Amino acid sequence: MDSNVKHLLRGIVGDAYFKDDAQSLVTHSYDGTPMLQSLPDGVIYPRNTAEVSAIMKVLHEHRIPLVSRGSGTNLCGGTVPVHGGVVMVMHRMNAIVEVDTQNLTATVQPGIITKQFIEHIEGLGLFYPPDPSSMAISTIGGNIAECSGGLRGLKYGTTKDYVLGLECVLADGQILRTGGKLMKDVAGYDLTKLLIGSEGTLAVITEATLKLIPPPKAKKTMLAMYTDIYGAARTVSSIIENRIIPATLEIMDNPTIRVVDDFAKLGLPLDMAAILLIEQDGEPEMVERDIAKISGICREEQAARISIAETPEEALKLLTARRSAFTALARLRPTTILEDATVPRSKIAEMVLEINRIAEKHNVQICTFGHAGDGNLHPTATTDARDLEEVHRVEAAFEDIFEAAIRLGGTITGEHGVGMVKAPYLEWKVGGPGIQVMEAIKEAFDPHNLLNPGKMFAKESRRRVVIERG
Amino acid sequence: MDSNVKHLLRGIVGDAYFKDDAQSLVTHSYDGTPMLQSLPDGVIYPRNTAEVSAIMKVLHEHRIPLVSRGSGTNLCGGTVPVHGGVVMVMHRMNAIVEVDTQNLTATVQPGIITKQFIEHIEGLGLFYPPDPSSMAISTIGGNIAECSGGLRGLKYGTTKDYVLGLECVLADGQILRTGGKLMKDVAGYDLTKLLIGSEGTLAVITEATLKLIPPPKAKKTMLAMYTDIYGAARTVSSIIENRIIPATLEIMDNPTIRVVDDFAKLGLPLDMAAILLIEQDGEPEMVERDIAKISGICREEQAARISIAETPEEALKLLTARRSAFTALARLRPTTILEDATVPRSKIAEMVLEINRIAEKHNVQICTFGHAGDGNLHPTATTDARDLEEVHRVEAAFEDIFEAAIRLGGTITGEHGVGMVKAPYLEWKVGGPGIQVMEAIKEAFDPHNLLNPGKMFAKESRRRVVIERG
Repeated sequence: MDSNVKHLLRGIVGDAYFKDDAQSLVTHSYDGTPMLQSLPDGVIYPRNTAEVSAIMKVLHEHRIPLVSRGSGTNLCGGTVPVHGGVVMVMHRMNAIVEVDTQNLTATVQPGIITKQFIEHIEGLGLFYPPDPSSMAISTIGGNIAECSGGLRGLKYGTTKDYVLGLECVLADGQILRTGGKLMKDVAGYDLTKLLIGSEGTLAVITEATLKLIPPPKAKKTMLAMYTDIYGAARTVSSIIENRIIPATLEIMDNPTIRVVDDFAKLGLPLDMAAILLIEQDGEPEMVERDIAKISGICREEQAARISIAETPEEALKLLTARRSAFTALARLRPTTILEDATVPRSKIAEMVLEINRIAEKHNVQICTFGHAGDGNLHPTATTDARDLEEVHRVEAAFEDIFEAAIRLGGTITGEHGVGMVKAPYLEWKVGGPGIQVMEAIKEAFDPHNLLNPGKMFAKESRRRVVIERG
Repeated sequence: MDSNVKHLLRGIVGDAYFKDDAQSLVTHSYDGTPMLQSLPDGVIYPRNTAEVSAIMKVLHEHRIPLVSRGSGTNLCGGTVPVHGGVVMVMHRMNAIVEVDTQNLTATVQPGIITKQFIEHIEGLGLFYPPDPSSMAISTIGGNIAECSGGLRGLKYGTTKDYVLGLECVLADGQILRTGGKLMKDVAGYDLTKLLIGSEGTLAVITEATLKLIPPPKAKKTMLAMYTDIYGAARTVSSIIENRIIPATLEIMDNPTIRVVDDFAKLGLPLDMAAILLIEQDGEPEMVERDIAKISGICREEQAARISIAETPEEALKLLTARRSAFTALARLRPTTILEDATVPRSKIAEMVLEINRIAEKHNVQICTFGHAGDGNLHPTATTDARDLEEVHRVEAAFEDIFEAAIRLGGTITGEHGVGMVKAPYLEWKVGGPGIQVMEAIKEAFDPHNLLNPGKMFAKESRRRVVIERG
């Protein structure tokens, strides 16, 4: 990137907010995904939409790639600047512009931290359900780019169900506004929904109008523990088949239980094959009735133990077990690869069986936890990036896992996105015509391939991308 | 269209299912929209996806336009074959392929009648909420193409919230499959949501996987009547602001009340300025509590009369009042133009005021009813297509209404679609960059502009399209 461009960029944001020192470049060369790294040529911190637009005009004119990002917590290599160029960090654009209690909407800038936003909203007696595990550090903009899910997805849906409108900057610097404070809007193609989950490849999101809902009046949390993991999986199907949609319905297998307990000292029973974390919320009477019915179903499916939290503190303790899974697993070995193969919820038992069979076949350690009610499992491999032979076995295992998910009517990613990591497998899910249409959409928005290039679409199919950390 | 092409098409579907006699052409030259008509060159009735694909390959090779349609109940001129070509009627593809009670999904062909599908699903103890007013004749495929709403949209969302996956045929005959029986899927761009509401301009939908939910256990229906329409509008805002989301929250103004009562003989009070139809469903205790709270809010806002249905028969009678609005209004004068300008729900009172002011300014009769809880109003003009001078006044009034809706943060269409009728106004809502991006998406899917050409994008901005019936 020549010094003239740097000069132009500094002119837009001020010297303090464009950086090209080694430390800034290295700290923005990777994200939450292990074993992927690539240096950008500069890092820029815009203050408002006008600056983002001005930056894009410069980059567009000089054909320089841009990767926009929040906290970089994604797990698909989605914000690694693999083609160099400029990394745009949205943290300065972190205002809650407005909470409209008449229309039940909030308008925010993309850099607001998810949890801060949720707490602000809850303080006003309202509710914003999407709660990705990374919410303490992730940004709403990043959640929108990846269409993040979370523990409440089963009942409440994911980020896409709560975005009513967007403001974004196109590759050439033009500003596009979609949707609004509107529950219904069919004026042309649904660009809002198309941009959600587009992983920064179509536009830079600069503002979002979010839907809020009334909070549930009551909530109850329980754990059900099984000596047989398939009993747990059958419980998941049976709850839904009995016309109950819990707020949360999560599973942890035995290896996950062990490491979580070692990490969080919760006194979990270490001899159980699986634990289900179940929450129901809503009207108090319904919550009581549903939890009673769910307990009955757990017993029918041979749950060895059921504990129902009697206080909010007890509930928090049960929830902590699930929320610490990733952190706890990450302590086991130097490298943690967390995936999110997803299947129809009726196939959970079969998928767990497949994952275990595949882990054994490739002689790798895979712990499984995840959003069982959504069919969204997180098979997680603990390995060591320095042991390339083992890493390749892990890669081969995940390849088999994606193949199994597709075979069971599932998908290669339920909430983490495609990025670099899943790009080689995208065709498995969407087929040749799907790739063709998606590439044409990318070309329609970004003909010079400037926005987050090298993501979503792979040159070759099949093999997971591994770049050695350099 | 030359006889060779006709021969090829007959070869695909059989002689009985390709028609080019005058009667078939005339009956497929218009849809539910008044004052628009254009003859196709042929009408074809495919039996399955393979036939649709084969048809598209022939049409693609010969660059012949295609308009796919269900029952043609749309109100935006969405299925008028304005560039000629072939009209593809999906009624033979009307199977309910599968209802999966474990995953709570249904897989259907596009030609199934909405109400038949809903009744089938309800018979299985499940619930499919989207209920457009035309559901007794509309098809699920048409609902998907237009992203249809309905009376239950406020609480349950619209068609787009219930489509999990699609099979469709692209302009060149390739078959594309999106999504699946998956609550979460972020493998690439969300083509499912992009296709919903794309009005047949991007692909021909040949199968859909729909999300079902557990039915509400109880339901209660009430009417609140006002001598002041703004009291009714304020009630709408106040209910939502009090954190209550009713299943249905509909408004009818005085002219609508009069014609509905004359039509359906319901004994409605003819001296009221507005009636709200309110339904709540869910857990029995919650329904009781919400209806009590809503009644309190209605009284605070000076409702002159409140009636709560005590039996399902009484509820049906109240619901019939709202459901017959369009039919009743259509009896007033030869031509009925029903629009759907939509505003943030807090702007309902202001918008009703605007509509009345505009009707007076242009000296036209506009009755207003609609989904008040969504901010989705249906200002409906009764006129006579033969009186061109009056029709032009009606057009001018609607132009002012769209302008007012945009000014209030709303949109030109909440659930009817753009089609031909709103195409000149699309830019008002989405701006220059929005039009540019949407046209690029259209080009990406359909470079030869074969799928429903002449819709959504207007040559000139501003004036509503009026084609005299020829």
